[in-house]
Amino acid sequence: MVSKNELKLITSLHQKKYRNKHQLFIAEGAKGVLELLDSELQPYKIFKTRDIDGLPLDKTVQISAGEMKKLSSLKTPSEVLAVFHMPEEKNEKGEGLILALDDVRDPGNLGTIIRLCDWFGVSQLLCSENTVDCYNPKVVQATMGSLARVQINYVDLENYLGSTDKPIYGAIMEGGNVYDSTLAKDAILVMGNESNGISSSILKKVTNTLSIPRFGSRQTESLNVATATAILLSEFRRS
Amino acid sequence: MVSKNELKLITSLHQKKYRNKHQLFIAEGAKGVLELLDSELQPYKIFKTRDIDGLPLDKTVQISAGEMKKLSSLKTPSEVLAVFHMPEEKNEKGEGLILALDDVRDPGNLGTIIRLCDWFGVSQLLCSENTVDCYNPKVVQATMGSLARVQINYVDLENYLGSTDKPIYGAIMEGGNVYDSTLAKDAILVMGNESNGISSSILKKVTNTLSIPRFGSRQTESLNVATATAILLSEFRRS
Repeated sequence: MVSKNELKLITSLHQKKYRNKHQLFIAEGAKGVLELLDSELQPYKIFKTRDIDGLPLDKTVQISAGEMKKLSSLKTPSEVLAVFHMPEEKNEKGEGLILALDDVRDPGNLGTIIRLCDWFGVSQLLCSENTVDCYNPKVVQATMGSLARVQINYVDLENYLGSTDKPIYGAIMEGGNVYDSTLAKDAILVMGNESNGISSSILKKVTNTLSIPRFGSRQTESLNVATATAILLSEFRRS
Repeated sequence: MVSKNELKLITSLHQKKYRNKHQLFIAEGAKGVLELLDSELQPYKIFKTRDIDGLPLDKTVQISAGEMKKLSSLKTPSEVLAVFHMPEEKNEKGEGLILALDDVRDPGNLGTIIRLCDWFGVSQLLCSENTVDCYNPKVVQATMGSLARVQINYVDLENYLGSTDKPIYGAIMEGGNVYDSTLAKDAILVMGNESNGISSSILKKVTNTLSIPRFGSRQTESLNVATATAILLSEFRRS
């Protein structure tokens, strides 16, 4: 059973304003929920429509598929929906490779990028304040549990980049060929918005531009920001 | 206005069976539709809810947002929905780098991979018969017009791979480090299913295995098939 108050609280978490107010967020899908339970994150409450191994009994309640449909943020709800406490915000880490996102809007792209940071051992993900919220349910779903293993901070990116002395690489269409570039280990890589790329105020802070050469026809659209991030992080790590 | 018969025809195209029967498919979204119009593909009919430059007048009709909602396969319909004739099937191309997909199921992944083939100039995309249909409306949307520029064939992959003398590279978790591998220019790269990887019958045909090293924690899930494809195609092209 889901009480009226719980239903109200949990559906409110589909919105960033209420996630921040309550310091809670939603994760959907058994695989991702189990991975998050296996991290430092603390569950607030878990709802399931069928028995699944590994869920903490004292925090889990069984509900009907109809109730799950009301709680879920997905078109096709999963069998598990968990509500987690947000972790306390930590100070930004300063060492190693840092990835910075300037106004990335698509939840699926941010989720994929968080997963890439986890794979490539990127210590710190910085998001501009207009980047999509990493506790958006669609982002959480796309991260598949990586959310708990990547440190993410929302910052005034222009300000942050103005106060660092690391090299700042920016991915732009007319940038230097990444295959021919020497990439520093201790650096910041900036990726821009899906339609507009890196904004002009941030571009002024970039010290080295990068691009991925195109081998196909001229007509080809730019690469998707998540696939471009995959290729560039691979280039930073491979050498 | 949309007639009853048109509505029936177009909504039937949400299903593969009827796409094949009528040899028609749907593309949604102004950007993708305009790119497809700028290719060899022939439009059958186009529906719009507001004026958009570049649509052929003789094929385009204005409809209401309510009518678009009925035609659309999307949760949030776009302002343009076009129906195109499927191109005639061509023989597979034999030269250069060929990408083969073994049972890739997610439409977004296939769409992203088609866009990557276009970017990296992959001459031929081969899909196993159980791979998602490339004319699925969600695939078409994710390709952003690249669909018209990449040759795609659905084949009996086991059979095909058994009859080629090119090197066959397969991406698997325990494969050889791609950064240390010498990659042939004239080759086939096989990518597997989102959950299960490359199936055992296909794996028998693979002559060289590849993997992307993990730099993060051991807990990290495998990379998404589209991001792994991005990194591997980049590796084939960079050298």
